[in-house]
Amino acid sequence: MLNRKFVMVLEEPTIEKTFEAVRSALSRKRLIIIVGNCWVDYHGRARSTLSPGERILIIKGDGSVLVHRPRGYEPVNWQPPGCIFHSNLEKGIFSIKAVRLKPRESLQIFFDKIYFVAALSLMDKGDFSLYASEEDMQEAIKIQPSLVEEGLRLITYEKKVEPGFIDVYGIDKEGRIVVIEIKRRKAGKEAVIQLSRYVESLKSTVNREIRGILVAPQISRGVQKLLITLGLEFKQLDPKKCAEILEKRKIKRLEDFH
Amino acid sequence: MLNRKFVMVLEEPTIEKTFEAVRSALSRKRLIIIVGNCWVDYHGRARSTLSPGERILIIKGDGSVLVHRPRGYEPVNWQPPGCIFHSNLEKGIFSIKAVRLKPRESLQIFFDKIYFVAALSLMDKGDFSLYASEEDMQEAIKIQPSLVEEGLRLITYEKKVEPGFIDVYGIDKEGRIVVIEIKRRKAGKEAVIQLSRYVESLKSTVNREIRGILVAPQISRGVQKLLITLGLEFKQLDPKKCAEILEKRKIKRLEDFH
Repeated sequence: MLNRKFVMVLEEPTIEKTFEAVRSALSRKRLIIIVGNCWVDYHGRARSTLSPGERILIIKGDGSVLVHRPRGYEPVNWQPPGCIFHSNLEKGIFSIKAVRLKPRESLQIFFDKIYFVAALSLMDKGDFSLYASEEDMQEAIKIQPSLVEEGLRLITYEKKVEPGFIDVYGIDKEGRIVVIEIKRRKAGKEAVIQLSRYVESLKSTVNREIRGILVAPQISRGVQKLLITLGLEFKQLDPKKCAEILEKRKIKRLEDFH
Repeated sequence: MLNRKFVMVLEEPTIEKTFEAVRSALSRKRLIIIVGNCWVDYHGRARSTLSPGERILIIKGDGSVLVHRPRGYEPVNWQPPGCIFHSNLEKGIFSIKAVRLKPRESLQIFFDKIYFVAALSLMDKGDFSLYASEEDMQEAIKIQPSLVEEGLRLITYEKKVEPGFIDVYGIDKEGRIVVIEIKRRKAGKEAVIQLSRYVESLKSTVNREIRGILVAPQISRGVQKLLITLGLEFKQLDPKKCAEILEKRKIKRLEDFH
């Protein structure tokens, strides 16, 4: 732990104390949290103002900035990493200006009352891992069929055929039936045989050309040959990419809701 | 102020103290900030895990949640308003589970060390106002010419003609020249006359049909007639909409950068 001082907290400090503490924390690139009554001016490609209210200001060591109101998951004002900071004390008003040069932007936050200030030195070497199940991959393909192939149109999901359920069933841009089998891990011999059975089973009921596509992050080396022999295809798809598409959709849904 | 207690701060509290304070703050729908060593599991349309590290957890009174790492402007995990919370203390681990029902999602944050906890009751009735200058409106039209008209292609900005500078100069889907004059406020007589001069000036040099479009949030009532007499058109465009397009572009640019 090297006797590291994790946290410096000031409760209801004066404007002067806040100014000193923040100036020192900024120079040491510590993470700063300020809660108080503030107003905000932003000048950049557009302009915005936020009239006075009680909010949380977070300044990170990488020069990113967030202003959070008491409600809502989105910051009302924010700046990406790389800001340069100027703090100021004038006539009882403490202000911090975050400036970016490219594009030219400035965000200035003015405080006339501070409830608390915290300066922190946080260590975070954790890994963030995003996963998708086969159902998630199916959902992502439903949202964006071009993940498999341009021009693909989906007809149904989990179609029942003799040997089980087809994951995704669609039509390609040339009008051929497409049967898709999804695996979230490296696809082996069984996946290829399963897909082949679905295609064969459909051939007896559908009077059209049928393609079978195995969708997975990888295919086992020895199985590639079997796949080709059986007239099937492989499309590489990373479950993480599917997870990202689902996450974006969540944001989009929320935006549509506004 | 009604003797309102703005802030309750605990510095380096025990896991037990944290549990009590957070449980009480959750029941009163206060804004909670917890800084400590934590790990996170998310289950929803996708799945994610975040391995241990020191982070900031913010829970707002509306049931939204943010987990911020020491770097980056985006939260690593988040939930929109409306979550239901369950806090738990087991074997020295304090955890908070935020659950949403539609879609079914759960975010669980586990702490084994707390640097500080703050519970706040913030008042924020401030207004957020977004503005765009005429240059911003021009930039937004450049990004998205369909703001003026479907099929419009832009050729140049600030084209010099005899009486001054044309704001935007383009070609419509039928191949006609389009001259655009932008005003960020209600457009009056002068704006119409200015646009008319540009169109007339171009007529002497261009051997094509020329359209003049006045783009503004509004047009003065008496001027509408003059506009029609001069063979010009009006397109209503809100500067705020332009500002939003520029803000979205900022996010998009940052995403492209990743």
